[in-house]
Amino acid sequence: MKRLAADGAITRTLVDKVMVLRWQDGSPDLPLLIKQSLLDWLGVSIAAASDPPVLVLREELEEQGGHPQAFVFGSPKRLPTQQAALLNGTISHLLDYDDVNLTLPGHCTAPILAAVLALAEREGANGSEVMNAFLTGYETTCRIALLVAPGHYTRGFHATATIGSLGAAAACARLIGLDRAATARALGIAATRTAGLKAMFGTSCKALHAGAAAATGLFAATLARRGFDSREDALECAQGFAATHSSDFNSDAALRDPDAGYHLFNNLFKFHAACYETQAAMECGHRLRRAHGFLPEEIRAVRVRANSHCNEICNIEEPRTGMEMKFSLRATTALSLAGMETSRPAVFCDANAQSPALNAIRGKVAVELSPDLALTESEMEVQLHDGRDFGARQDCGIPMKDREEQGRRVAEKFHCLVDPVLGRSRSGQLASLVDRLEALPSASVIMGACM
Amino acid sequence: MKRLAADGAITRTLVDKVMVLRWQDGSPDLPLLIKQSLLDWLGVSIAAASDPPVLVLREELEEQGGHPQAFVFGSPKRLPTQQAALLNGTISHLLDYDDVNLTLPGHCTAPILAAVLALAEREGANGSEVMNAFLTGYETTCRIALLVAPGHYTRGFHATATIGSLGAAAACARLIGLDRAATARALGIAATRTAGLKAMFGTSCKALHAGAAAATGLFAATLARRGFDSREDALECAQGFAATHSSDFNSDAALRDPDAGYHLFNNLFKFHAACYETQAAMECGHRLRRAHGFLPEEIRAVRVRANSHCNEICNIEEPRTGMEMKFSLRATTALSLAGMETSRPAVFCDANAQSPALNAIRGKVAVELSPDLALTESEMEVQLHDGRDFGARQDCGIPMKDREEQGRRVAEKFHCLVDPVLGRSRSGQLASLVDRLEALPSASVIMGACM
Repeated sequence: MKRLAADGAITRTLVDKVMVLRWQDGSPDLPLLIKQSLLDWLGVSIAAASDPPVLVLREELEEQGGHPQAFVFGSPKRLPTQQAALLNGTISHLLDYDDVNLTLPGHCTAPILAAVLALAEREGANGSEVMNAFLTGYETTCRIALLVAPGHYTRGFHATATIGSLGAAAACARLIGLDRAATARALGIAATRTAGLKAMFGTSCKALHAGAAAATGLFAATLARRGFDSREDALECAQGFAATHSSDFNSDAALRDPDAGYHLFNNLFKFHAACYETQAAMECGHRLRRAHGFLPEEIRAVRVRANSHCNEICNIEEPRTGMEMKFSLRATTALSLAGMETSRPAVFCDANAQSPALNAIRGKVAVELSPDLALTESEMEVQLHDGRDFGARQDCGIPMKDREEQGRRVAEKFHCLVDPVLGRSRSGQLASLVDRLEALPSASVIMGACM
Repeated sequence: MKRLAADGAITRTLVDKVMVLRWQDGSPDLPLLIKQSLLDWLGVSIAAASDPPVLVLREELEEQGGHPQAFVFGSPKRLPTQQAALLNGTISHLLDYDDVNLTLPGHCTAPILAAVLALAEREGANGSEVMNAFLTGYETTCRIALLVAPGHYTRGFHATATIGSLGAAAACARLIGLDRAATARALGIAATRTAGLKAMFGTSCKALHAGAAAATGLFAATLARRGFDSREDALECAQGFAATHSSDFNSDAALRDPDAGYHLFNNLFKFHAACYETQAAMECGHRLRRAHGFLPEEIRAVRVRANSHCNEICNIEEPRTGMEMKFSLRATTALSLAGMETSRPAVFCDANAQSPALNAIRGKVAVELSPDLALTESEMEVQLHDGRDFGARQDCGIPMKDREEQGRRVAEKFHCLVDPVLGRSRSGQLASLVDRLEALPSASVIMGACM
C-alpha cells in the first residue's frame, strides 16, 4: 500500500512569490493603486452600510455577542474580528459597485480588505503592513484564478467567494507574519472551507459571499498560526481545490509573473453604479455630451454597439424598476446622454425608470450586438436633428493609463458616495488618512474614521 | 432577454417530505434509533473533548468572545450558538468513531446534532422537538446525497461536510419552525456556503468539516428566519449545488421514499475505534475467540479475506504507530484475536503497535483481497496447531437486525468511552437522560450533563 506523495510544489512556489512582495519595491504606481483600491472600497461600503440585508446580518451577528475587536460599517458597536470580516465584506459587495479584476473574473479587493482591516485592528498592525498584506492577497487571488481558469467560473463557482477566501487567507497570513509552511496550511484550511455559487447572483447571498470569503480567510490564517493542522498542498493535490473545482489546471499561468508586473495593475474601478457591461456605453454617452454640449431633445437617434453576450446580461429593453435599469444598455445610455450622475446609486431608481423624459431618450436608442467587441467594450453613434453626427468608443476592460486621473475619478466617486453619509468634512478626513496610509502607525484609524 | 425560470420543484418537494416527519409516526424503532444515534454521538464527543486540535480551535473561538449560549464538550465555558456548533461538530468527528451512513457515504449525525443541540439551548426546545429536527436533518442529508451520487464523492467532495451543511440547515429550520419557503432559502444559503475536500482526510480539517457543516447549517437557518434572501431552488437550479458539485443528478432517487421507510434505519455504528473497513474482520476475530476460547499461542495461521479496495485504505502490513494500526487489517485482526478491547481508542497506541506478543499474532495473519466481497465485508479462517479450523463472516455494511441488541452495544461503547471521563455515575445519568429524551421539557439538560 502506497500513500500519494504530498508534493506541494505549486502552493509552495506561489507562497514564496507572494509573501515577499512589498509596496515599496515596485513602481510608484503600486502605493497609488493600493490606496485607490482602499478608498474605493471604503466608499462603496459606507454607502451600503444601512441597506436592509446589512441590518438583518448585523442583528444575527450581534445576537452572538463577542469582544469588541473590530469596527463595522454603519454601527458604533464593534464586533469580534471574524464577525466584522463577515459583515464588512458583505457590506462592501452589496452595491456591486466595488472594483473588478477580469482575471478572476470578479472582485479581489472586498474579501481581502474586509479581512485584513479587521485583523489589523486586533493585531495593532500599521498602514504599511496593511498595504503589503493587501498586495499579497491581491496577487494570490489572481494567480489562483489563473490556475483554475476558465473552468472554475464557467462551472458555476463565484470566484469572488471561492478564490476570494484564498486571497484573504494569504493576506491575513502575511499580516500576522506566518512562515511559509503555516501560510500553506492557512491556504489549505481556506481551500477546504471555501464556497459560493454564481446561481446566487441577484440575491443578497452574492454579497454574503464576499463577507464569507473574508471571514474564512481570516479564520484560516489565525487557526494556522495556532498550529491547527492541514495539508500544505491543498491547491494542487489529488482531490484538492483545483481538481474538485475546475476542469482546468494551469500551473504555468499561476506561477508566471504577470506581464504588467502586478495583477493589481489590472484592477478596474466601476464609475457607474450599474452592471459592468454597461459602463463603456455610459462612458461614451457622458463623453459625447460633454464634448459637444447637445441637449437631449436635439438627439434624433443613438446607436450603441456591444458584445453579443450582453443580451444575457444587460439588455433589458424597457426596464420598469431601478434595479432593471442597471441591466439595460438602452436605459443606462439614456441616463448618460441626459447628463445624470450615474456614479450615484440613487440614480437607478424606479422613478427614473418610469420618467417620460428619460424614456423619450431611451426610445431613440438602438442596440446592436456583435461578437467582434469585447464584453467590456462599446461604440456609440449619436445623430442630432441638425444633421451632426458624433461617435465614441470605450473599452472598460482596460485600466486607465493615466493613474493620477484614475485617482481623481476614484476620489470623485468616493465623495459622491460618502459625503451624504459622513458629511464633506469627515469624508475628507477619511480620504486624507488613506492618502497617508503608509505612514499610519496604526491602521485601525481608517475603520475608526468610518463611523 | 430571458431569465432562467426558478423552478424549485426538487427543493420544494424534498422540503415538503422532510419537514413533516415525526418520530412518533414511524415504527417503534424510530425513537430507538434516534436515541442510539444521540448516545453514540455523546460518547465519541466526550472521549475526544480534550484532544490537542480541540484545544487549538477552542482557544481561537474563545478569543472572539460572545454570549454564553450553548454548552461545549470539555469546558465549563459556554459559547455563542455558532461557535458551539462549530466546536462540538469538530469534536464529535475527531476520533472518526461516529456513526456512518453508506448512502452519503459519511457521517450524518455529527453536523446535525452539533447544530441542533446548540440551537435548542438558545431556543428552549424540548426533547421531542430535537428528535424531529434530527430526523428531518438525517433524511435530508441522505436524500441530497442520493441526488448527487456517486459523482459528488468521487470528484473529491467530503459529503459529511458539504451535504452535512444542508442536513444541518434543514434540521435547524425544522427546530425553529421555519415555513417551506424559508426552509428552502435556508438550504440555499447553506448550499452556497458549503465546502469540504476529501483531500483533507488524515488532517484535523476532516473533523473541522463536521463542525463547519454544523455552524453553516445553523447560520443558514437563523439567517433565513430573519428574512435574508436567497434562492429557493439552489439544489437543482442552473449552476446550483448539484450542477457545480457533481456530474450526477438523480432527482428520482432523492425524492423517492427509502425502502426501509427511513434512511435512519441504515445508520451504522462503529464498535471498534479503527477504520470502518477493518470492523468486519475484528467482528470475526472477537466472535471466533469468544465462541471457541482458544489462546493466541494456539493459533497456527489466520486468513482474512476482504475487498480489493482495502489495499488503498487499510492494508498497512507492518504498522509502527497506533494511528497506522487503525488502517491495518493484519494488526486489527491480531488485536481482536488477542481479546483486546478494540472499542477503546487507547488500544490503538504506539506501544501496542510495537508489542512482540501482538506482532507474533500479526505475523500469522495473511490478507487475501478479492473484488467479490463488499467493502465492509470480511471472512476469517483461523487454524489452530491442534488441527482445528474455525471460520466466520461479517458484513458491517448491514445494520444489525436486532435493534435492542444494537442498543446494548451502543451503550457498552458509550460507557467504555465516557466512564473514564465523567465517572460511572454521571455517565449513567447522562445515558438515562437520553433514554427519556422525548419527555424532556428542555433538551439543554443533555449537553449540560456532559460537563
